[in-house]
Amino acid sequence: MSERRPAQTHSASVDWLGWAVGPDFVTTPVERLHLTYAGIPGDLHEGLTRKSGAREPWYPRGTPMRNERQLSLLSREELNAIAETLAIPDLDPAWIGGNFVLSGLPAFSTLPPRTLLMFPSGAAIRVDGDNGPCRASGRGIVRHVPERPDLEFGFVKAAKHRRGLVGWVEREGEVRVGDTASVRVWEQALYP
Amino acid sequence: MSERRPAQTHSASVDWLGWAVGPDFVTTPVERLHLTYAGIPGDLHEGLTRKSGAREPWYPRGTPMRNERQLSLLSREELNAIAETLAIPDLDPAWIGGNFVLSGLPAFSTLPPRTLLMFPSGAAIRVDGDNGPCRASGRGIVRHVPERPDLEFGFVKAAKHRRGLVGWVEREGEVRVGDTASVRVWEQALYP
Repeated sequence: MSERRPAQTHSASVDWLGWAVGPDFVTTPVERLHLTYAGIPGDLHEGLTRKSGAREPWYPRGTPMRNERQLSLLSREELNAIAETLAIPDLDPAWIGGNFVLSGLPAFSTLPPRTLLMFPSGAAIRVDGDNGPCRASGRGIVRHVPERPDLEFGFVKAAKHRRGLVGWVEREGEVRVGDTASVRVWEQALYP
Repeated sequence: MSERRPAQTHSASVDWLGWAVGPDFVTTPVERLHLTYAGIPGDLHEGLTRKSGAREPWYPRGTPMRNERQLSLLSREELNAIAETLAIPDLDPAWIGGNFVLSGLPAFSTLPPRTLLMFPSGAAIRVDGDNGPCRASGRGIVRHVPERPDLEFGFVKAAKHRRGLVGWVEREGEVRVGDTASVRVWEQALYP
């Protein structure tokens, strides 16, 4: 039996919120988001279900499945670290389709699956797991830094294990910029 | 940064299936189960949402929330080990409300959250995480072993980290006794 690490509680600040208002994955900043069981109403990734894609090679592309990727959760500290690695002044969460930017949690992208983020309104998000960086996000950056076409691939490498998390809504409610989130990490053990 | 353990694939056999046909949590064996996004149609734990209970002390009791506990997944090896610890001839999965009994996976109850179980029909289950043993399950055993009232508490202790997993349906479809499940464990790292 491998090491067990006990449950933990942390807190984090909501620094930024955004939603994908159009057919593109890029997001637009807002001061508050209302979350339902399907995610963000009107957002590109809203849905109780979704169609599978390249991230699920074990399913035929387009297979209906439960949508565990309703929300893209990013970390201010990791965005800064990626920008530094890429030698660009700033990495705007909107360029890569972020819905939340949180600060105050070390190694944010390694928060384990099942982690719970609870907000003052009662809204709660369950973490599905880390979000693998993709070239579409890299291209989203290049649109804003056109003199650096290398960032399309560079982002994928620089953002590995720092590209944040995806998750789904466990409890409905509102989240506002400036909220403090309470974060519960469950007991952990490496398998097997 | 802690150790990273790479993604793994395993397989397991579906030894037994059951559903909670009545208002009680005990289950009745069946040869096949049809899974929908809400779980098992007609089962006590069916639902896209549920009400919170004693397992979620951070929510007021009865709070509506997404139902990540649609299915109770047990392991034949762990059931045998618990029975041995309790010195009873057999621990019937129906007594403790099991929906699935799988065999062939070591340390089944420590399979991490996000683990994916895929069945031949295309049905798939996502693991939410380990299921903490409770006295209600202990009482379910005592009903069948009335000369051993100590099992109400004894089960809670003996089943710790061996009481299986809970999960939700990622893809709809049928599961049959005798199916082989393909099991995908994602890359792991302990936080922080």
